[in-house]
Amino acid sequence: MPDSLRDLARAILDAGLAAVAPHAALARHLRRHHDTLAIAGIAYHLGTYRRVVVIGAGKASAEMAAAIEVLLGPHVTAGLVITKDGHSVPTRAVAVREASHPLPDARGVAATAELLALLATPSERDLVLVLLSGGGSALLEQPADGLTLADLQATTDALLRAGATINELNAVRKHLSAVKGGNLARATAPATVVVLVLSDVVGSPLDVIASGPCAPDSTTYADALAVLARYQISDAVPPAVRVHLEAGARGERPETPKPGDAVFARVRHVIIGDNAQAAAACVAEAERRGLRALLLSTFIEGEAREVGRVLGALARELRTHGRPLAPPACLVLGGETTVTVRGDGRGGRNQEVALGAARGLAGLADVLVLSAATDGGDGPTDAAGAFADGTTLARAAALGLDPQVHLARNDAYPFFQALGDLLVTGPTRTNVNDVMLVLAG
Amino acid sequence: MPDSLRDLARAILDAGLAAVAPHAALARHLRRHHDTLAIAGIAYHLGTYRRVVVIGAGKASAEMAAAIEVLLGPHVTAGLVITKDGHSVPTRAVAVREASHPLPDARGVAATAELLALLATPSERDLVLVLLSGGGSALLEQPADGLTLADLQATTDALLRAGATINELNAVRKHLSAVKGGNLARATAPATVVVLVLSDVVGSPLDVIASGPCAPDSTTYADALAVLARYQISDAVPPAVRVHLEAGARGERPETPKPGDAVFARVRHVIIGDNAQAAAACVAEAERRGLRALLLSTFIEGEAREVGRVLGALARELRTHGRPLAPPACLVLGGETTVTVRGDGRGGRNQEVALGAARGLAGLADVLVLSAATDGGDGPTDAAGAFADGTTLARAAALGLDPQVHLARNDAYPFFQALGDLLVTGPTRTNVNDVMLVLAG
Repeated sequence: MPDSLRDLARAILDAGLAAVAPHAALARHLRRHHDTLAIAGIAYHLGTYRRVVVIGAGKASAEMAAAIEVLLGPHVTAGLVITKDGHSVPTRAVAVREASHPLPDARGVAATAELLALLATPSERDLVLVLLSGGGSALLEQPADGLTLADLQATTDALLRAGATINELNAVRKHLSAVKGGNLARATAPATVVVLVLSDVVGSPLDVIASGPCAPDSTTYADALAVLARYQISDAVPPAVRVHLEAGARGERPETPKPGDAVFARVRHVIIGDNAQAAAACVAEAERRGLRALLLSTFIEGEAREVGRVLGALARELRTHGRPLAPPACLVLGGETTVTVRGDGRGGRNQEVALGAARGLAGLADVLVLSAATDGGDGPTDAAGAFADGTTLARAAALGLDPQVHLARNDAYPFFQALGDLLVTGPTRTNVNDVMLVLAG
Repeated sequence: MPDSLRDLARAILDAGLAAVAPHAALARHLRRHHDTLAIAGIAYHLGTYRRVVVIGAGKASAEMAAAIEVLLGPHVTAGLVITKDGHSVPTRAVAVREASHPLPDARGVAATAELLALLATPSERDLVLVLLSGGGSALLEQPADGLTLADLQATTDALLRAGATINELNAVRKHLSAVKGGNLARATAPATVVVLVLSDVVGSPLDVIASGPCAPDSTTYADALAVLARYQISDAVPPAVRVHLEAGARGERPETPKPGDAVFARVRHVIIGDNAQAAAACVAEAERRGLRALLLSTFIEGEAREVGRVLGALARELRTHGRPLAPPACLVLGGETTVTVRGDGRGGRNQEVALGAARGLAGLADVLVLSAATDGGDGPTDAAGAFADGTTLARAAALGLDPQVHLARNDAYPFFQALGDLLVTGPTRTNVNDVMLVLAG
């Protein structure tokens, strides 16, 4: 594989990653001049607030808190963020608590109670900055009155086993929680709230990221009950859960706040980093380096190897017909693919994208496909993804490697490792799904 | 589904189909003025030739022959084309023979002998026009000396059962045939030969379309033997086949003509219609109707439903972010997807593409995905494909139709039939694979 095209791809990807690193992403959206804080174009006069409280949850929340402290200097009054074990970084005024992820635990619930205590007497003269990132849903949790963490977990398990969709799962979970589905906004009103979001969900839907603690919820208790009925698990969930939802459906418990609810009057969400921002930064870097560039979609989903074949088809068109751009050219796509695991091999979705692209690239000169997990970890491997080009299959054949065998075994890692074509970045401390590049030199 | 966007998609598709209809495609590339025939920029002075012979094979070959007769008027001396049963059209100087497809039969072999007899005394003063289209490989066949059609068929069956790739299959078949793999060019030399190709193979590789009767072959007898050895079927094929290939490998039989061989000195291929031409015509029509348009790739392959998801992701990006084009916009893709059949339902690859796209489109206003087989027949159905838009899932739910159930059963036809969203064109008398449109109004 020619170094030049690979180096170019890596530089373009790195620019995308840099744009969504917590510090850079916050610095791009927040600017302070003396006691005026501008957040994505709106000014907040820090001197007019009684308190500036920083709260949050997610794998990047400690990193984000540290960055906020640098930006706000002495203006942070207090704060607490909850992050995954091992994801703490040093902070000054904002406390950092660690808890379990992806399965929630009692430490997360205790930290959430601590976080809510900070908001005990909210006032119009409070400014609350909420830092959300991937993992927030498990880390920030307070079961609704009368329920336990075990109740919530058993319900989630039953829904997943039954094959519920993510939207169905969320309709139920939001009605069993004191913080999800806009309930956290109840605890902050009437404070001024700015939710700063590093999105790990394709398309960045505010009601899905971290289960939308400050976002309106359009589902109801009745919807939650209907989901249980649809999958015939009304009797499989803990009795307390059914009792809770039925009481809610009778109007005996407060609904999650709906769109237009007064609790959201002073709540604003700002996506400080997401896949679209990373992809746009890739396009800008490609253009800065003299390539023509297009962002095709940030909503890519689907079976990884099949998405890879489409990327191969895009590369072949660039090379063969100079469409949609005359080379040197770069197409940028983002999203998150999935892998239907059938084998017992090692690999990740981005490595399967690259392997799926290899056949379509075979024999093409000076083209390259790179698929990368922006958090640096693709599946359970130490690689972030892999490179494929027109020489991949021939070099593999020379080593006795059969791409079909490796695909059948979900075993892309050893394939690309043998070729020296793994992408290794190490942990990036951010996560905005995956970025895919198609280059023609 | 709003009629306007669907009508627009249909009009754009129709422009693509019109561009590759045999008559239109030939008329676009061939122009006659008195006795000068210009073919894609090169002039042939018909008066200088002793004979103008028209030969060919494929599902569109009779249609193409009729069009050639209109274009050349009295200048056609003689000719014969072989087409599939039921695909004849009236002609004047060019005889039409029908034979079996996709399985070859004795009628095809007899017609091929008749066709070769027309070329019995080739001269530099002959102009031979060769009309090739999809199906030509089965229809035009003469087993090599000492072999029978049954030998060829048994070998093909063994290779397919063993899982050989199309390239491996062709390496063997070209060495068992007197016409495939450039061997027909031997029969025409030293005549001037123009091969007019309506391509049904993604990417239009000349050595693959109709098994490349007039195209150089880069494979050898040794390659063919290696394929049999690789799949351990050397003893499973008829003994005469093995004997033939071994004699060839020893140099006792002529090799297929290789790139640079003198037999190709006066042979020229012109792709008069292929997926790229249809797709380009779709782009031109979209622009004529005031849309921004881009051709993304004409090499699309992969599992139909997964390709559909990518199309859904492209539509969502158009609608949400106006990328890569600000609406009103049209993205055009071409190629041919495949379906891994797991259920017993009715449908076709293009209908599965549309069904795969539906979820990603759900709730989006004024977007549409259309996937269409350019021959008008998608799988074993009377539809050419289907439309999907942001209302597809909701309208299906109202009718009690579950897209996941229909996908699992490979049963897209009844799904779209119930919605009134099938695309029905009837037979188009051409075939340049599939065209996919992604529209945002």
